[in-house]
Amino acid sequence: MSAATQHLIQGQYSFAEKEGFALECGGVLRPVSLRYAMYGEPNAACDNVILVCHALSGSAEVATWWPELFDDPRLFGNDRYCILCSNILGSCYGSTGPSAINPQTGKPYGASFPLVTIGDMVRAQYELLRFLEIPRVKLVIGGSIGGMQALEWAMDYPDVVEHCVAIGTVPVGAMGLALNHLQRQAIWLDPKWKGGEYTSDDPPAKGIALARAIAMCSYKSAELFEIRYGRRPNRNGEDPWADHQARFDVGGYLDYQGQKFVERFDANAYLAITRTMDTFDPVRSCGSAYAAYSRIKAHVTLVGISSDWLFPAADVRALGEQLRAVGVDCDYREIESSHGHDSFLAEPEKLASILATHL
Amino acid sequence: MSAATQHLIQGQYSFAEKEGFALECGGVLRPVSLRYAMYGEPNAACDNVILVCHALSGSAEVATWWPELFDDPRLFGNDRYCILCSNILGSCYGSTGPSAINPQTGKPYGASFPLVTIGDMVRAQYELLRFLEIPRVKLVIGGSIGGMQALEWAMDYPDVVEHCVAIGTVPVGAMGLALNHLQRQAIWLDPKWKGGEYTSDDPPAKGIALARAIAMCSYKSAELFEIRYGRRPNRNGEDPWADHQARFDVGGYLDYQGQKFVERFDANAYLAITRTMDTFDPVRSCGSAYAAYSRIKAHVTLVGISSDWLFPAADVRALGEQLRAVGVDCDYREIESSHGHDSFLAEPEKLASILATHL
Repeated sequence: MSAATQHLIQGQYSFAEKEGFALECGGVLRPVSLRYAMYGEPNAACDNVILVCHALSGSAEVATWWPELFDDPRLFGNDRYCILCSNILGSCYGSTGPSAINPQTGKPYGASFPLVTIGDMVRAQYELLRFLEIPRVKLVIGGSIGGMQALEWAMDYPDVVEHCVAIGTVPVGAMGLALNHLQRQAIWLDPKWKGGEYTSDDPPAKGIALARAIAMCSYKSAELFEIRYGRRPNRNGEDPWADHQARFDVGGYLDYQGQKFVERFDANAYLAITRTMDTFDPVRSCGSAYAAYSRIKAHVTLVGISSDWLFPAADVRALGEQLRAVGVDCDYREIESSHGHDSFLAEPEKLASILATHL
Repeated sequence: MSAATQHLIQGQYSFAEKEGFALECGGVLRPVSLRYAMYGEPNAACDNVILVCHALSGSAEVATWWPELFDDPRLFGNDRYCILCSNILGSCYGSTGPSAINPQTGKPYGASFPLVTIGDMVRAQYELLRFLEIPRVKLVIGGSIGGMQALEWAMDYPDVVEHCVAIGTVPVGAMGLALNHLQRQAIWLDPKWKGGEYTSDDPPAKGIALARAIAMCSYKSAELFEIRYGRRPNRNGEDPWADHQARFDVGGYLDYQGQKFVERFDANAYLAITRTMDTFDPVRSCGSAYAAYSRIKAHVTLVGISSDWLFPAADVRALGEQLRAVGVDCDYREIESSHGHDSFLAEPEKLASILATHL
């Protein structure tokens, strides 16, 4: 990321210390703190800001998890751009989330952390932009719940956003709601969850690992699993035909992904953000597709992923039609991939190619 | 079921009390007991026996879980047929499974119940047929792991089986292996599992409920979930936009399915049978498709289900091609359904229509 090498600001912006930040659900967060990373600087005209919205387990440091997009000279890989990303409300990478202190109790919110909507997340990001004196963004971009935020930005701040790119995202369908529900059950089932009052040195590791493993199945595709793992025994030599605990390769992979996740993510934050994801439903919130989407002034690009079964490409395409029907300047592109939902992170070059020919 | 009304025998056949029943994995079961139900009687020529093989959570009493097929006068719903079904080895409906006493310890096998293959299950059923003096069966039929048994019957006892119908079944693919793995993790995560040494009055209820809920997602289709539950709040009035524990409708459905299952199934049996399911792989066991399938003399009908993502129709069709390539008289039929894998139980009339025009 060329901008990053010349100029990286990592910061923390806290606000609403007195008045509180009112949430859509009726709760209040006091204060709100957002961790952010800014690569490069806004120019005088402020027509060079790219706002990146991260997905469930991402962080503000977009250079660490989406470098390919910002290294690509066809895209944002030149000194001209200012790339901004903030850790979402409810997360555990520096922004206010369940491990923050609830001023009413003097203890961490834990499981009582209030429901945060995508609208709340975006409104907090807007406060950060005001603080940074950034009146408009050239592009807001994100995948998965990052894409939900990008759409919400275009809806709620039509005069701020010029382009919006939302990848692999629609309101979660019934199968997605089911899988998120099961992931929360997995965390709750772990006795170490303790009603959310675990300590960071003794987290519900098995529960969050199982939740992540369930999620991984939905992020990947059956086709990819078949190619990568098939019916092969676990690569460490376990024999599932002999030993009862022995795994197939895909089981070993899922366990490994689960264990890695334990080290880097907080269970209560996971619970909170999957709930946020579930509740994103602009048509319901606004009463109609017209009320939700006709506010948008940005050019919107929706990107579907051919093998995504969590946010099926057909649903993303249908959302594009819904947007166009109410007058939004919207186009639809599709990533041909066997990687499933994860393609936007696993094969960034495919996304980059689509964006390069398009933006 | 007309045959059932005239003549039902429910029995238990125990064997291998002294010599033991050697399993493919190297273990021995001593004795083996099979619970069976026989509706009607074999005729003198013994050309009227229908052998039904049940799926993961089924029982010998086929009249209770597949009545439509055996009520249908176009199929087996007349007095002519003798319908036989036995509870599979490893299950908890009367046949030898993890709750049986291990003679070496004097205690239930529990989690140490040895790995039983589909081949072992079928060989035990063959012993039952010998005991019942049934030398041949007109048709062996089953769905899911019942279909695996039906195929195994056709492979291992080619002179016994005249027709074989296997529905929604192939060796489990990588995604299926992944989902079975996660289901076992869910049971192991429940502190009440206690290494498999729980008592029947205090089982790992939450673990098995979560396992069943994960399985239900794979038995149904996203399309069906979308139609039935969509993004609606749980029908009991919960509000997922207000209350953190509140569920969407599909979450309420999955919890209900999980709770119902706790009352009727044993966790160790579930662990055992999912392992059996995972290990079904005739080509691997026999060394080649030719060695596995060319033994078959029966006419084989494979039935795929259009919306099945656990055992995709394309994979069932490909298995049919594999069988035909080695000379098996095999045809492929497909159930057009949005019900997913479960269609063979949820929409038996569709299966019945296919079978009626075909058999």
